[in-house]
Amino acid sequence: MTTTEFDFYFDYISPYAYLAWPRVQDLADRRGCALRIRPIVFAALLNHYGQLGPAEIPAKRLFTFKDVFRRAAQLQTPLSLPRSHPFNPLAALRASLVGNAAGHQRAVIDALYSAVWSQARSVQTVGDVATILSDAGLDGEALTAAVGSPDNKAELRSNTDAAIAAGVFGVPTVVVDGEPFWGHDRLDDVERFLDGEDPARDLKLGQMPATASRR
Amino acid sequence: MTTTEFDFYFDYISPYAYLAWPRVQDLADRRGCALRIRPIVFAALLNHYGQLGPAEIPAKRLFTFKDVFRRAAQLQTPLSLPRSHPFNPLAALRASLVGNAAGHQRAVIDALYSAVWSQARSVQTVGDVATILSDAGLDGEALTAAVGSPDNKAELRSNTDAAIAAGVFGVPTVVVDGEPFWGHDRLDDVERFLDGEDPARDLKLGQMPATASRR
Repeated sequence: MTTTEFDFYFDYISPYAYLAWPRVQDLADRRGCALRIRPIVFAALLNHYGQLGPAEIPAKRLFTFKDVFRRAAQLQTPLSLPRSHPFNPLAALRASLVGNAAGHQRAVIDALYSAVWSQARSVQTVGDVATILSDAGLDGEALTAAVGSPDNKAELRSNTDAAIAAGVFGVPTVVVDGEPFWGHDRLDDVERFLDGEDPARDLKLGQMPATASRR
Repeated sequence: MTTTEFDFYFDYISPYAYLAWPRVQDLADRRGCALRIRPIVFAALLNHYGQLGPAEIPAKRLFTFKDVFRRAAQLQTPLSLPRSHPFNPLAALRASLVGNAAGHQRAVIDALYSAVWSQARSVQTVGDVATILSDAGLDGEALTAAVGSPDNKAELRSNTDAAIAAGVFGVPTVVVDGEPFWGHDRLDDVERFLDGEDPARDLKLGQMPATASRR
């Protein structure tokens, strides 16, 4: 199999994407795949599908936070409750676009993900983002100077549209060869897919009708 | 810790609950816990929360079926596409209630889960259910004679209401000591919880405000 690139769709709002982030880089690097890192607006996915996010159902919100602390403990990844949640991720997402961060993209995302999910720092303003990047040894001023530019806004929208077109409905999702894999804990499935050993490779639902629906 | 019972909430509509079913029994039996087996109507949960099910978003429906085939392959559990999906699970759910199946409850559920998820058989009519139970060596006629009784309908509603009251938002969910664990792959978390080693045991979200919401 000669897949050479895959897409990683994420939003800072998702702690599961935080858990996925180092593992996705490791997977791409280890397999020699080019990694296209694509920040998206999870809320826009929810709007598109008419779906509620985990944070919008109180019982699911509580379970999800507990679950992610359990997963972080298993993975021995530092995790703390964010300063607020849901929060506005737009400044952080725009700063993280390849068109904005260029060759610093991975370092920018490392810094912002750590800030949100292990340091309880706000990323809601451009000033927050600049300070976090500077604290990480990056040029925070330069990397945030054009955060709100039309180009950045267009790239973030374009990533989100591409995600929807690729069948992405949640974050984190890795898309390889047109195949979406949703969840921080589905990277082993990506590996099997890359090895040509995906048990679901040829599954088609075309012949299976629906015989019930909700009112 | 002296927990002696836990609740297993499921609906035949969920292939993940099918994967969970033998493992939940094993866990309860191994830990000496009484298992309260509680069929519920997943669609009623969705109605309650105003949420879409995985089968109601086409991209998520396709991913979910692929994912469950991947999980079944990992677990070496037989799985095939059902005859139709979503389908009407009410006859099967009512036949599976403790008030209806009594001491045969586990055998009834074994038979119906196999029929749906590894034999592509319909369970939509009372006649379907009776035949499946008889084919499994049970008394299908007796076990379906009162499927539509007011008592069965009330018990199914009561289970569903109890699930919602317990913070259940999806299936399968195991509730132990008031703590819900959602997902066929969260049974190791239940074990850690029973051992007093749940990393999320004391997590409270009370101090964490929301600072963004969708329009």
